[in-house]
Amino acid sequence: MTRNILPCGFKANGVSAGIKHHGRSDLALIYSDVKCKAVGLFTSNKIQAAPIKVCKEHLRKSRYFYAVLVNSGNANCFTGRKGIEIVRSSAQFLSKNLGIETKQILVASTGIIGKILPLDKIKKAIPDLVRGLTENGLNKAALAIKTTDTFAKKITTRLNIGNKTVIISGIAKGAGMIAPDLVYPKHTRAATMLCFLMTDADITQRALKKAIERSAESSFNSITVDGCMSTNDTLLILANGKAKNPLIDIGNEYFNRFSKALNQLCAGLAKMIVRDAEGATKFIQINVKGAESIEDAKKVALAIANSSLFKTAIYGENSNWGRVIAAVGSSGVDIKEEDLKIRFSSLSKENISLVVDLNRGKYCAVIYTSDLSPEYVKINAEYN
Amino acid sequence: MTRNILPCGFKANGVSAGIKHHGRSDLALIYSDVKCKAVGLFTSNKIQAAPIKVCKEHLRKSRYFYAVLVNSGNANCFTGRKGIEIVRSSAQFLSKNLGIETKQILVASTGIIGKILPLDKIKKAIPDLVRGLTENGLNKAALAIKTTDTFAKKITTRLNIGNKTVIISGIAKGAGMIAPDLVYPKHTRAATMLCFLMTDADITQRALKKAIERSAESSFNSITVDGCMSTNDTLLILANGKAKNPLIDIGNEYFNRFSKALNQLCAGLAKMIVRDAEGATKFIQINVKGAESIEDAKKVALAIANSSLFKTAIYGENSNWGRVIAAVGSSGVDIKEEDLKIRFSSLSKENISLVVDLNRGKYCAVIYTSDLSPEYVKINAEYN
Repeated sequence: MTRNILPCGFKANGVSAGIKHHGRSDLALIYSDVKCKAVGLFTSNKIQAAPIKVCKEHLRKSRYFYAVLVNSGNANCFTGRKGIEIVRSSAQFLSKNLGIETKQILVASTGIIGKILPLDKIKKAIPDLVRGLTENGLNKAALAIKTTDTFAKKITTRLNIGNKTVIISGIAKGAGMIAPDLVYPKHTRAATMLCFLMTDADITQRALKKAIERSAESSFNSITVDGCMSTNDTLLILANGKAKNPLIDIGNEYFNRFSKALNQLCAGLAKMIVRDAEGATKFIQINVKGAESIEDAKKVALAIANSSLFKTAIYGENSNWGRVIAAVGSSGVDIKEEDLKIRFSSLSKENISLVVDLNRGKYCAVIYTSDLSPEYVKINAEYN
Repeated sequence: MTRNILPCGFKANGVSAGIKHHGRSDLALIYSDVKCKAVGLFTSNKIQAAPIKVCKEHLRKSRYFYAVLVNSGNANCFTGRKGIEIVRSSAQFLSKNLGIETKQILVASTGIIGKILPLDKIKKAIPDLVRGLTENGLNKAALAIKTTDTFAKKITTRLNIGNKTVIISGIAKGAGMIAPDLVYPKHTRAATMLCFLMTDADITQRALKKAIERSAESSFNSITVDGCMSTNDTLLILANGKAKNPLIDIGNEYFNRFSKALNQLCAGLAKMIVRDAEGATKFIQINVKGAESIEDAKKVALAIANSSLFKTAIYGENSNWGRVIAAVGSSGVDIKEEDLKIRFSSLSKENISLVVDLNRGKYCAVIYTSDLSPEYVKINAEYN
């Protein structure tokens, strides 16, 4: 990991459009001066926000993209046709400012559900947002996508591909309603977790898709804060090829190196989301091994991670393995009491590690989660 | 509903055996002076406590039963062979005191998981427990099965069957780890919810089974406090025939009357459990209608009821329907945003009613739940 800079050709910015109160930053723009390939993964919630519908449509209609427009403070979800029209109008307005086609813009929102997004405020803010685009804008964009996050989440990595330096950068937001199950649109299977990744790698579309699906599975799809799946989860990756590296494709020598770097970068962002979870006082790693399949291992780990009784026990610094056992047994996965081994290895006051061995097979899974504190309740009792 | 008395032929008692600290009541006995038919429904958790294993075995081995022995303060779960031996020894010891066979005794436990139940203390307490059996012992038994419950849960109803008065009484405990999914042992499909029902009705075994399965579904299996399924959930119903009513059987005129009374009684106890949930400040009723099947309606209602974000919003007296929508969409049930209607009808500060209409079919379900408060976190951070 290195200084948080943007890959070659990318610029970013974040401004206050007045969607949030008190002039807080709430509108972010990511822009590439050359066309990008892009892949999007979205929530599997059956209710999907208007920006997700429009974003999927643009991903179907266009092969190349130049920009990502994101607002916080309003999810633009359950807002019907009006909600969709507002996304289209803001993208259209931005496209004129940038001199690109509307379908070449990707969009995302996070915030309160069911309120109409103020189009006039967004339009008013766009000229400044565009004018302020800069190669040093990663932090401003990261700040503008925050909701209850206490810090801006950003990360950058460099790697060598055929003697060329490739950069991957990302920003994310999390905090609450975090239990992503991100999927490629053609599947139908969720937090408001937003993540935007940019790279100057030259990579084929299929390799980009395979790499990000794999990375999302072991990072964002392996975290849970409260088990509540959002209507707005969005992960977008854009690749503009400006590094001029030898083309990365599935099967060639560069793919695994790129994929590994992307894995680490996504894992880094996902862990930041868990560390900054609403009210969290602990970072918990749950390793389930000895399962008959990866799915079983993940199901057991999620049953523990989403158990309010387990999470409150950890908040109380009480390694109550009885609650772990009850959660394991409630997961629906076939287990035998006599085979089950549970071990807490408390690394420190803030980092808890739990290993559950089902002793039935060779598969394993790791899930990251946080504890459940009175502060979580307070934040969410007051949020509106 | 009437004065809380026991049906004809039944006696009960509760004492302090020293399983809990500070001399709190922790051992209950229910006894019938004539043989009883019995039906048991148990947790569908894959990890099952020792008393559940022994109770199921007795229900298979014997046709008639005389007694139910229940302890609180220790779940006798994840205690291996030793745990089973302790249940057998205590039942055997009690059988000699009562002059009945060991297999004619049913058993249940609730409390901490993974600790060895002190057999010596139980044996020491049994003679007094038996000597103190009385027709007025319902309250004492209800007190002895409590864990974090703030009040003893008991209920009695009378009905006429062929000019004879039939009495049904019940006691229950709940508070936390409440998300029962009680099933008849041959099925395999959760809280520590304990419920013991006694009736002097003369009823066939098959009618008793059908009536209690139906009643459990719309009562205990329709409540959730924290979505955490226990390893010890047990529901037992005993019928001794002492009312000398015309035999109740499936299909005859008496069955529906008995079944309806049992439904109301179970619903009454289930609602007491929700009202007394750990840290609860609200009683929430969620009605989902317009579903394509009962299963779909229940799945949607449970997704809302188990959403920490919904529960904290209600604690905050914030009718945040955005969180209802996110939960509905995450249930996995097929829905259309444009069909969905959500209505909060706040009946009072303590009683919240939410109606969700999916507008897709004719099926409905009702789930009862509580809010999530800082007090719930506190209770469960400290409990051990």
